[in-house]
Amino acid sequence: MRKRIKIIIPNTTSEFNESVYNLFNPLKASDTELDICNIKGEGALYLDQKYDEVWSELSLLKEAEQAEKDGFDGVIVYCALDPARMALREALQIPVVSIFETALHVTAMLGNHISLIAPPGSIASREEMFHQYHMEDQMTSVEFFNLGIENLAEDESSSYQIVKAAAQRALNKGADSLVLGCGAVMGIAKRLSEELGVPVVEPGPVALKYCEALIELGLHHSKVAFSLPRRHMP
Amino acid sequence: MRKRIKIIIPNTTSEFNESVYNLFNPLKASDTELDICNIKGEGALYLDQKYDEVWSELSLLKEAEQAEKDGFDGVIVYCALDPARMALREALQIPVVSIFETALHVTAMLGNHISLIAPPGSIASREEMFHQYHMEDQMTSVEFFNLGIENLAEDESSSYQIVKAAAQRALNKGADSLVLGCGAVMGIAKRLSEELGVPVVEPGPVALKYCEALIELGLHHSKVAFSLPRRHMP
Amino acid sequence: MRKRIKIIIPNTTSEFNESVYNLFNPLKASDTELDICNIKGEGALYLDQKYDEVWSELSLLKEAEQAEKDGFDGVIVYCALDPARMALREALQIPVVSIFETALHVTAMLGNHISLIAPPGSIASREEMFHQYHMEDQMTSVEFFNLGIENLAEDESSSYQIVKAAAQRALNKGADSLVLGCGAVMGIAKRLSEELGVPVVEPGPVALKYCEALIELGLHHSKVAFSLPRRHMP
Amino acid sequence: MRKRIKIIIPNTTSEFNESVYNLFNPLKASDTELDICNIKGEGALYLDQKYDEVWSELSLLKEAEQAEKDGFDGVIVYCALDPARMALREALQIPVVSIFETALHVTAMLGNHISLIAPPGSIASREEMFHQYHMEDQMTSVEFFNLGIENLAEDESSSYQIVKAAAQRALNKGADSLVLGCGAVMGIAKRLSEELGVPVVEPGPVALKYCEALIELGLHHSKVAFSLPRRHMP
Amino acid sequence: MRKRIKIIIPNTTSEFNESVYNLFNPLKASDTELDICNIKGEGALYLDQKYDEVWSELSLLKEAEQAEKDGFDGVIVYCALDPARMALREALQIPVVSIFETALHVTAMLGNHISLIAPPGSIASREEMFHQYHMEDQMTSVEFFNLGIENLAEDESSSYQIVKAAAQRALNKGADSLVLGCGAVMGIAKRLSEELGVPVVEPGPVALKYCEALIELGLHHSKVAFSLPRRHMP
Amino acid sequence: MRKRIKIIIPNTTSEFNESVYNLFNPLKASDTELDICNIKGEGALYLDQKYDEVWSELSLLKEAEQAEKDGFDGVIVYCALDPARMALREALQIPVVSIFETALHVTAMLGNHISLIAPPGSIASREEMFHQYHMEDQMTSVEFFNLGIENLAEDESSSYQIVKAAAQRALNKGADSLVLGCGAVMGIAKRLSEELGVPVVEPGPVALKYCEALIELGLHHSKVAFSLPRRHMP
Repeated sequence: MRKRIKIIIPNTTSEFNESVYNLFNPLKASDTELDICNIKGEGALYLDQKYDEVWSELSLLKEAEQAEKDGFDGVIVYCALDPARMALREALQIPVVSIFETALHVTAMLGNHISLIAPPGSIASREEMFHQYHMEDQMTSVEFFNLGIENLAEDESSSYQIVKAAAQRALNKGADSLVLGCGAVMGIAKRLSEELGVPVVEPGPVALKYCEALIELGLHHSKVAFSLPRRHMP
Repeated sequence: MRKRIKIIIPNTTSEFNESVYNLFNPLKASDTELDICNIKGEGALYLDQKYDEVWSELSLLKEAEQAEKDGFDGVIVYCALDPARMALREALQIPVVSIFETALHVTAMLGNHISLIAPPGSIASREEMFHQYHMEDQMTSVEFFNLGIENLAEDESSSYQIVKAAAQRALNKGADSLVLGCGAVMGIAKRLSEELGVPVVEPGPVALKYCEALIELGLHHSKVAFSLPRRHMP
Repeated sequence: MRKRIKIIIPNTTSEFNESVYNLFNPLKASDTELDICNIKGEGALYLDQKYDEVWSELSLLKEAEQAEKDGFDGVIVYCALDPARMALREALQIPVVSIFETALHVTAMLGNHISLIAPPGSIASREEMFHQYHMEDQMTSVEFFNLGIENLAEDESSSYQIVKAAAQRALNKGADSLVLGCGAVMGIAKRLSEELGVPVVEPGPVALKYCEALIELGLHHSKVAFSLPRRHMP
Repeated sequence: MRKRIKIIIPNTTSEFNESVYNLFNPLKASDTELDICNIKGEGALYLDQKYDEVWSELSLLKEAEQAEKDGFDGVIVYCALDPARMALREALQIPVVSIFETALHVTAMLGNHISLIAPPGSIASREEMFHQYHMEDQMTSVEFFNLGIENLAEDESSSYQIVKAAAQRALNKGADSLVLGCGAVMGIAKRLSEELGVPVVEPGPVALKYCEALIELGLHHSKVAFSLPRRHMP
Repeated sequence: MRKRIKIIIPNTTSEFNESVYNLFNPLKASDTELDICNIKGEGALYLDQKYDEVWSELSLLKEAEQAEKDGFDGVIVYCALDPARMALREALQIPVVSIFETALHVTAMLGNHISLIAPPGSIASREEMFHQYHMEDQMTSVEFFNLGIENLAEDESSSYQIVKAAAQRALNKGADSLVLGCGAVMGIAKRLSEELGVPVVEPGPVALKYCEALIELGLHHSKVAFSLPRRHMP
Repeated sequence: MRKRIKIIIPNTTSEFNESVYNLFNPLKASDTELDICNIKGEGALYLDQKYDEVWSELSLLKEAEQAEKDGFDGVIVYCALDPARMALREALQIPVVSIFETALHVTAMLGNHISLIAPPGSIASREEMFHQYHMEDQMTSVEFFNLGIENLAEDESSSYQIVKAAAQRALNKGADSLVLGCGAVMGIAKRLSEELGVPVVEPGPVALKYCEALIELGLHHSKVAFSLPRRHMP
């Protein structure tokens, strides 16, 4: 079954486009077609907190609405802050996959005490996400690693050790499973999991598999819960 | 103590500016100075649901940041959906008052079973607010009245009856206190309360008194919780 | 990537084996190999409540342990009561997918008010599952349809109407999304969803896609949470 | 609008009357009239825990009922244990403001992780208050400072340091906002807030502003929730 | 093992003393000695709500402290509002049994959906008790029967039917177990249970058995949680 | 009132039968008749985690059904993991007492912050029990002592110190009351309580008193909640 999926990176920079494509491409089903873009118009260069989300959400919303008009079967918002999640579900009828939400639900099926490992930002905005998804009872901690998104790629080996130290702090507090809270941290989940002995969930890949599953099974979000906008903007 | 308060209506229309001013003016302390505006640039004409919020939030954020630069002592966002609440608290250091949040906390001190009476919109976005403020245990119901914001002013007497019917449905479900969830429903709380025998909280006025109190007492939100944006946009 | 998945039906009857195989086969990835069996030894003919689970769980556990020894990459327990969920996770290191748990997490991403539509059984055992998965806040109701598992196949058209009537009761109580709580109710989700206008999640298919995803991404449950048995039985 | 407010200190000593008056007087609106008293008859000298509350509550209740008969527009109970809160709301129709309840709701709008800084007493009775107000999810800790109410005034500088040390312990545990849980700790909130970098809410002042607001807006607690006593005592 | 238990009825009337004694006497262990009294001094004639509790609590507290001095091994407070529960635990070291608390814990072990059947009073004060005992998730409803405590004994047959009608309303809402919330409703639990087909828990008897068990097993409440009053009143 | 109680130890070994009998015999009412057995057929030697439960539950269920047929008035399952709790309530109409459930409810009436002291096993299966009984809010921690059930009796003095060290860790985390989570730890609760200054609840004895009370008062679990199996196995 042909599945056309639009991946929207809600950053104004295109610097992640290629690496996200390279992350997703080997994981996609053979009959999945991926299209990737970042946002146009106003927006944040990188998204760390709610402030950045507000900058990017309208451009993201427009991009997603266009994707539905263009006949895509599903949309993945590639940012672990899940910007505009509810608005997108009101606006669209095709599945909209928020990557952190998906990752959190998967992690909750793998363990009971979840810590989020994330780049520096606002503690309130990160913890809010566990609350929003009714999983604060399962949250052990939010661990910020001391390295901005903009510096992650500079020295991969050193970056890995900084992320791992944050993960180790989480385990010391009782976490039994970890979720990575940054779309720019790619490809380290498996190594981290093996070295630490707990599951480590990277949001992008699980979101891709979940989006494919929704399309194949003909599932989409409830329009009774997320009703269409009463007044669509032009 | 002089208190300069900026009231921002996150709609692209200026049609509410005068009536909100007229609502607030007789209630303000004598040493309070009010300045009122609606948003410029992109935004929603009326705000009913998350989709509309995304349209208005960036313009609202810019307006609020300007208010802080202009030396205002506090900002009130006059919309019962509390758009951009967390982003505004990250961006600003002066108090930012979200009117529905304030109203909900006040209502929770007056009764135990709260219903929200609101114009039609998305059920998910309305219930989410109780959850966001950790008050879903105290929520009895969300009652939509069958009258769009845009038609509220047309026939005041008929509008009142439609709102009252929704309020009555809430009481039948066990609500013992009501909160109005629409900034465009003004000046009916007292009558409704007297006719129904339960407290009815209108968000605007309690938000004004709360904002004045914060300024007088030198209180503002925690910057440990809502840290400043790592990268301010221009 | 080759994925060998064992599907265990924890009933002593083999009457569902073929229909479950026919359900899964067209949905599986081309490189997935499915093996299906029901339990041997002591067990329940049909599983409606906790009593039946206790009858079937040990035989199920033995079957699952054998599957791991036989080199399978994952196990799906095909029963919407999720028998022996925690014991299986203690015993095994390969992913163990409980179909109702998976379905509930997926449904929680599609809507906010979930009802379970199930054949008659014990109300306590059904509601317990929402609680066990920390989703009782999102539970609207459990609706039993008045038709035993053993009679479901007798008259498909009449069975469908009986199930649909239960689903309609759920919507009347405010449900905005439905999950089917019986592995014997197969292939009606799409029709029900279309006729009722809300998502209807059938556990089997989402469990298959989830199991494939776990295997492909190298994820499995936390052995820190679910530690290996201190004393393995022979 | 003239607002006559009765402040009742539920202690048998009058030693706090003047300092509370001096705290409230500069903060009150120009048209607010304050009347302050402590309790007569049986009661506790100081209130640290539930035991003390039981000693003072009946005398407090009688004083409050008298205040309503005397035509006051509102009552503030000046004790951070909120004695007789529900009984007072049953007995009276004018607003009854419990100072800790108000402070807790305000603090919850300023931050997400609240610690209470209090003089020694019963841990159960202090934590119970967070639970009673449905805010235990937002409670980080109760920090007792090692100094009885009776000794607070002896050496203000040393007392301040002892309170501050308790506040610092709270921050180390993750608190992002503090509430003072003792009516005898007056006038240090601002200094503490500046030195620690988080909001510090002193209950008295916020209670005064809240009481004034209720009176001005014509709001009072729900008599559906808090029904009048079936048998008023003489 | 000799067990001396003091039963305190926190009413100023002695009219229940004999009937409570007659209720407890056949149920007590052979080596239990019962002493029963009502309160002296100020207090409520009957206790329906928080207002009445405040009237009776200090006299109750004094009586309980005297009982401990007199060498009793345990105290039972015979009133289903559980007056002064926390204060009594602070003041005393011997077990203090609050009858409704005990009944609620027992009921929670018998069923999952509990309704309280009670004489008219304040809805807030009744629901608060489920919340106080962390059992609001298990509360189905509070059903008031339309008959004051003072009239219960007038016509037993008619009273029974009125109570039963309230119980039936609870079952219609989904309750699967009932707890009686009035110490004056005695001796009807068994009949009600048989006629309705669900467990009906009467607080007095379970409290007696629980108090005996605590004494026999040498258990009493935690003085770390409920610390002794810092200043005992004379 | 004659009370015939069947105590079932769900282990395949009979090594605990005598010590449990010796524990219960001096505590039972004079008119209570105790009968004790361990399970026959398949089962676990010792029960530490969910895996072991699955091994023992069916044999336990059969034993309990036989007890009801044999005319016993109540069943006590002597294992602190409460195996087959819900299934037993579905299957039987006479009271079925799960010892840990009872102990947890009693502990919750004695303190507010409960820690479980248990032999090594699966953290998930132990914490799950607090969740299952809706008491996770009152859980401070699960403390495993480093000594298997099989070695407990070897050196009683050394075992006691190992258990006490675990209990002390719990107090350091804020526990104010403890519950022992192992039926093989007998007769140390009183000493532990005296040395640590907090209540320590041993499940067996409170379960015995509770079972006697249920029988005397004619109470049993709700068959509306736990409906009889639709199909009883032979």
